[in-house]
Amino acid sequence: MSKTVPSSMALAPSASPPKEPVCIFGTGDFGRALGHKLLQSGYPVVYGSRSTQGSSLLPSGVEVLSHAEAAQKAAIIIVAIQRQHYPFLTSLAELLRGKILVDISNNLKLNQYPESNAEYLAQLLPGARVVKAFNTVSAWALQSGALDASRQVFVCGDDLEAKRKVMDLVHALGLTPVDQGSLLAAQEIENYPLQLFPMWKFPVFLSLGLTTFFFFYCLTTDVIYRYVQEKRDFSFLLAISIPNRICPILALILLAVVYLPGVLAAILQLYRGTKYRRFPAWLDRWMLCRKQLGLVALAFASVHVLYTLVIPIRSFVQWRISTYTISQALSNKTVPLDTTNAWISDSYLALGILGFFFFVLLGITSLPSVSNSVNWREFRFVQSKLGYLTLILCTAHTMVYGGKWFLSPSSYKWYLPPPYMLALILPCAVLVLKFVLVFPCLDKPLTQIRQGWERNPQYPE
Amino acid sequence: MSKTVPSSMALAPSASPPKEPVCIFGTGDFGRALGHKLLQSGYPVVYGSRSTQGSSLLPSGVEVLSHAEAAQKAAIIIVAIQRQHYPFLTSLAELLRGKILVDISNNLKLNQYPESNAEYLAQLLPGARVVKAFNTVSAWALQSGALDASRQVFVCGDDLEAKRKVMDLVHALGLTPVDQGSLLAAQEIENYPLQLFPMWKFPVFLSLGLTTFFFFYCLTTDVIYRYVQEKRDFSFLLAISIPNRICPILALILLAVVYLPGVLAAILQLYRGTKYRRFPAWLDRWMLCRKQLGLVALAFASVHVLYTLVIPIRSFVQWRISTYTISQALSNKTVPLDTTNAWISDSYLALGILGFFFFVLLGITSLPSVSNSVNWREFRFVQSKLGYLTLILCTAHTMVYGGKWFLSPSSYKWYLPPPYMLALILPCAVLVLKFVLVFPCLDKPLTQIRQGWERNPQYPE
Amino acid sequence: MSKTVPSSMALAPSASPPKEPVCIFGTGDFGRALGHKLLQSGYPVVYGSRSTQGSSLLPSGVEVLSHAEAAQKAAIIIVAIQRQHYPFLTSLAELLRGKILVDISNNLKLNQYPESNAEYLAQLLPGARVVKAFNTVSAWALQSGALDASRQVFVCGDDLEAKRKVMDLVHALGLTPVDQGSLLAAQEIENYPLQLFPMWKFPVFLSLGLTTFFFFYCLTTDVIYRYVQEKRDFSFLLAISIPNRICPILALILLAVVYLPGVLAAILQLYRGTKYRRFPAWLDRWMLCRKQLGLVALAFASVHVLYTLVIPIRSFVQWRISTYTISQALSNKTVPLDTTNAWISDSYLALGILGFFFFVLLGITSLPSVSNSVNWREFRFVQSKLGYLTLILCTAHTMVYGGKWFLSPSSYKWYLPPPYMLALILPCAVLVLKFVLVFPCLDKPLTQIRQGWERNPQYPE
Repeated sequence: MSKTVPSSMALAPSASPPKEPVCIFGTGDFGRALGHKLLQSGYPVVYGSRSTQGSSLLPSGVEVLSHAEAAQKAAIIIVAIQRQHYPFLTSLAELLRGKILVDISNNLKLNQYPESNAEYLAQLLPGARVVKAFNTVSAWALQSGALDASRQVFVCGDDLEAKRKVMDLVHALGLTPVDQGSLLAAQEIENYPLQLFPMWKFPVFLSLGLTTFFFFYCLTTDVIYRYVQEKRDFSFLLAISIPNRICPILALILLAVVYLPGVLAAILQLYRGTKYRRFPAWLDRWMLCRKQLGLVALAFASVHVLYTLVIPIRSFVQWRISTYTISQALSNKTVPLDTTNAWISDSYLALGILGFFFFVLLGITSLPSVSNSVNWREFRFVQSKLGYLTLILCTAHTMVYGGKWFLSPSSYKWYLPPPYMLALILPCAVLVLKFVLVFPCLDKPLTQIRQGWERNPQYPE
Repeated sequence: MSKTVPSSMALAPSASPPKEPVCIFGTGDFGRALGHKLLQSGYPVVYGSRSTQGSSLLPSGVEVLSHAEAAQKAAIIIVAIQRQHYPFLTSLAELLRGKILVDISNNLKLNQYPESNAEYLAQLLPGARVVKAFNTVSAWALQSGALDASRQVFVCGDDLEAKRKVMDLVHALGLTPVDQGSLLAAQEIENYPLQLFPMWKFPVFLSLGLTTFFFFYCLTTDVIYRYVQEKRDFSFLLAISIPNRICPILALILLAVVYLPGVLAAILQLYRGTKYRRFPAWLDRWMLCRKQLGLVALAFASVHVLYTLVIPIRSFVQWRISTYTISQALSNKTVPLDTTNAWISDSYLALGILGFFFFVLLGITSLPSVSNSVNWREFRFVQSKLGYLTLILCTAHTMVYGGKWFLSPSSYKWYLPPPYMLALILPCAVLVLKFVLVFPCLDKPLTQIRQGWERNPQYPE
Repeated sequence: MSKTVPSSMALAPSASPPKEPVCIFGTGDFGRALGHKLLQSGYPVVYGSRSTQGSSLLPSGVEVLSHAEAAQKAAIIIVAIQRQHYPFLTSLAELLRGKILVDISNNLKLNQYPESNAEYLAQLLPGARVVKAFNTVSAWALQSGALDASRQVFVCGDDLEAKRKVMDLVHALGLTPVDQGSLLAAQEIENYPLQLFPMWKFPVFLSLGLTTFFFFYCLTTDVIYRYVQEKRDFSFLLAISIPNRICPILALILLAVVYLPGVLAAILQLYRGTKYRRFPAWLDRWMLCRKQLGLVALAFASVHVLYTLVIPIRSFVQWRISTYTISQALSNKTVPLDTTNAWISDSYLALGILGFFFFVLLGITSLPSVSNSVNWREFRFVQSKLGYLTLILCTAHTMVYGGKWFLSPSSYKWYLPPPYMLALILPCAVLVLKFVLVFPCLDKPLTQIRQGWERNPQYPE
């Protein structure tokens, strides 16, 4: 090709040298899709197949050879065959010596085999340089170009040079390589596409547990208590009133759970006098799923807002107001406006609205594309300052809502405190701890520690 | 400068060789902006212009030469002149032989000329390697760096090597090249910036058609019927009540339209016994705009929610409630609470709230930055499982809303069924079909087919 | 092509040549984190340190040498030491001649020193090629890989070749280099991480000023006036009613402020007869923060919506409705439905809902990931057409809300017009100006000017 362009060749070394061919073992769905994509990106593609008759499904412009012939043509071989056929490759062991074998396979179940497919391949062919990659990408997505889901390609391997070449290949295909370290990580990478929102597990299970607890708590105090004591059927409260008690409680508790580990970490750092010792594993994991916890809390808050706003449309509420008005009219009296009541009612609504507003703001800034466009100081400002403001507003909202019933005995049905009181424990604890940590006598050493100062430095420079 | 760095030169070939110069024909807005950007990215830039006096608008540090001289300096020439001036380039045909000519032009109208500008250029200069690119980028965006709109640059061309070089150039400018194939695609690429939301056309026209139909339907049953039968003017219902009937109906129908093609595709695959035959074109197109259909449905649902929540503020509603209460008070009676009614009212509100909540969740996960950060299993889980859950909740919401009026003759004004009944037909059909497909006797072969199994394989391996 | 790649050769010509080593001066947090990341990306890393005993905190696989030895090993040296230690580097001046020194430092305060750290470094070592980079990235983010905040790395430097190499390095680490020009920009880049939402300053201060003004205005007309005239305490209006007056006013004014500079720019271009003269600085700055102004306006609109929707739940409102109903019942009269009233009430609610709906749509399209996926024509359509539609709907909403009170003397307490009238001035002015500009006699020359036509061209081609 260079012969046709002498003038350009004379001018400068081309920015992109001709790309080296890539070999693909296997002509299944994924092999075909990847070949198609590689061709588009300018890589020559050679297929290794049992039958060398090109299928009409293969992209045009590729060579189809026997496995042995194909392997000789390229330095990178993508193994798009199933694990159970791997042993066949041992017959090519000599040819594959030194080659980069890219294992793209997935299993059907978590930890299906004792070792990962990639490690199995490396054991079968000790002379080859095995790299795990591409297993998180779907053939359909590659072919249609509609990469709506992840563009991330997790890559791992023991040979650094081989891994880097595969990462370059991934990059050239318009995908984002993510280095996951040595081949030991292959097991985790193979499990990844089988997992469903791994970071969301703890938040979801925590909220399911809490929901169940508060559901039966509210059922007892609101439905069963009234049925036992007053013989009245209030089971319809199950549709809106009780969910609308549970949602704000969970939103508040989960929001406190978001900020609790940060406070605990600060206490631990103060106690240890250094930031260079790892946190316990449970604290690390907890801190890593704070974003998910916050979003689940936001979901509960949103449903709470919707449930609250439909209150005046509910036929039960309309009946209650109407009955009250009629009874007032019949007894021929008008109540003057109670300004204290108006203040309390308006305050807790206003606090709730502002709290929800900042909560939504937090949610928006946690969108990947938004958080990518702010600097660190801004990100910390939003997630920390605005976060605590939200927590304060939501806690105040609940407190003012509780208002004067805190001390009224009628609130304690069967000696059980109303559920919102239980919800206040954790947020108040977090706020008190945070308030204590803000005092200069604690804040100053903490800031020093976070800037790298150590009380008992291990490696004096 | 290399003289001052012997030690580094000894160590390794530089990661980035000096970049080859790029020539730009034409010093208009786009030519200037692109030159500016190329300079910033380290490319030497040469302008080819009729007048070789550099304008003060040109970026500093560029050469301005005659077209012929400039063309000799670079392998890549960006043709930033208008189509009507292309014939002038034939005089340079010999010089341009083998050069990469990048056609960046756009037309003012769709399909303005029989052939695309890029194909026209290739016909005029058969010796040059023409590549279409950059036509979707605005000069203003390039210059200001405020690339708020698309970073995608569609590239097409018959010469693979030339196309790859242009794609490398696009990449180096911080933009995203998207290969669209051979120069035949130029027509489509040139039409692209003239198009306004092409994927949204079908969803928008469909919803406009349905809106018109249901508007006149509701006008008939709610305003005209009452005017004719009761001689009362209810025209004010046009502002809120009637839109609030149309919005939920459209949201529900469009949501069903999102899931209908998936069901049809499954039936077709089952019938054909293979997944390797293309769907009919209409089904393909329908499936490609499901996301847009879903978002339009979400828009209708959101407006429905707002319209519903303002109900208690409407002066008509306040008048109706007040009148009812007064009449009750005057007739000196109080109605006891109807628990069945309370159950129905609360249930349909709760179903609607939950349906809307999951609907919004679906909308959030369709944001590009969110869908990029989930794996395929998660994406499918959200779009399929959560999608059907939303459809079930919304259908149930409408059914419970209809409730006991289904069989009441007073609902059938002029023998017309109330509009929400019409809205239920399609969602129920989709849900029934889906329910049938979930049975193991159909689900098992379908899963096999989707994994590549064929009932009558064409290419036995 | 296969001929050119015999099997031995297939292994050798790597797509990516071995990467040249990078030297890091300093083994602090950032030095360690960056070294870790560089290693992962395939770069050999050499540390220059006072003590050459490798700390256990350093990534494994790196060399730790004296500063002088380390400097000789690499062409790029990352200076991860604090500004006060820079003078020490002068002792290495001879060794650092021609090397690329990457200044990554930040200050603790804005404009802490007369010259930027990078310029200071360049003064100390006139033979070195200083490039500013990486100062906006946090060590913690580099190490954990959790780049939730900005991936943008601002780069500036006087040596183009050196700058490009650093930008390549940034790119190789998976970050996004952004060229900011010569080393003069270092001051600004060093200030950047200390800034908190710089683009949001004007919108936030403007809205704070307006909020304060309207707060005292409403306080006067709603609370003080009634207290003085009627001796009644309406202070509880401070919680919801008064915020709910201020929010829509600010949303409307700020929305008008978004579209005012565009209209002014059009007038200026028409007057000057060219688009090639710069706008005055204040207009430029104003136009650059339109997106932020619009988002602040949207925030106010959202809070207004929430405040409005809780109206029927407020105990004051329930008391007012109940009192009114009782008084009607007691005086034994029923008011017939006022259809005009119903029309007005429903219209302003419907206009508000639609205005808010389009406002939210504008907000969603301003999300980076959404605006990246539309073409320019679509972006302009949304931001201009939909924007004006929103402005028209919101202005109409306010006008219909005002309705019949415009001319009623009782609205003018102490001769002060109701606040919403003040809010209407700016939007109406913008809409009138825009309406005038749409006339063909002005629109045609404006379009020509924007396409590059000049009334008095300076550089005739």
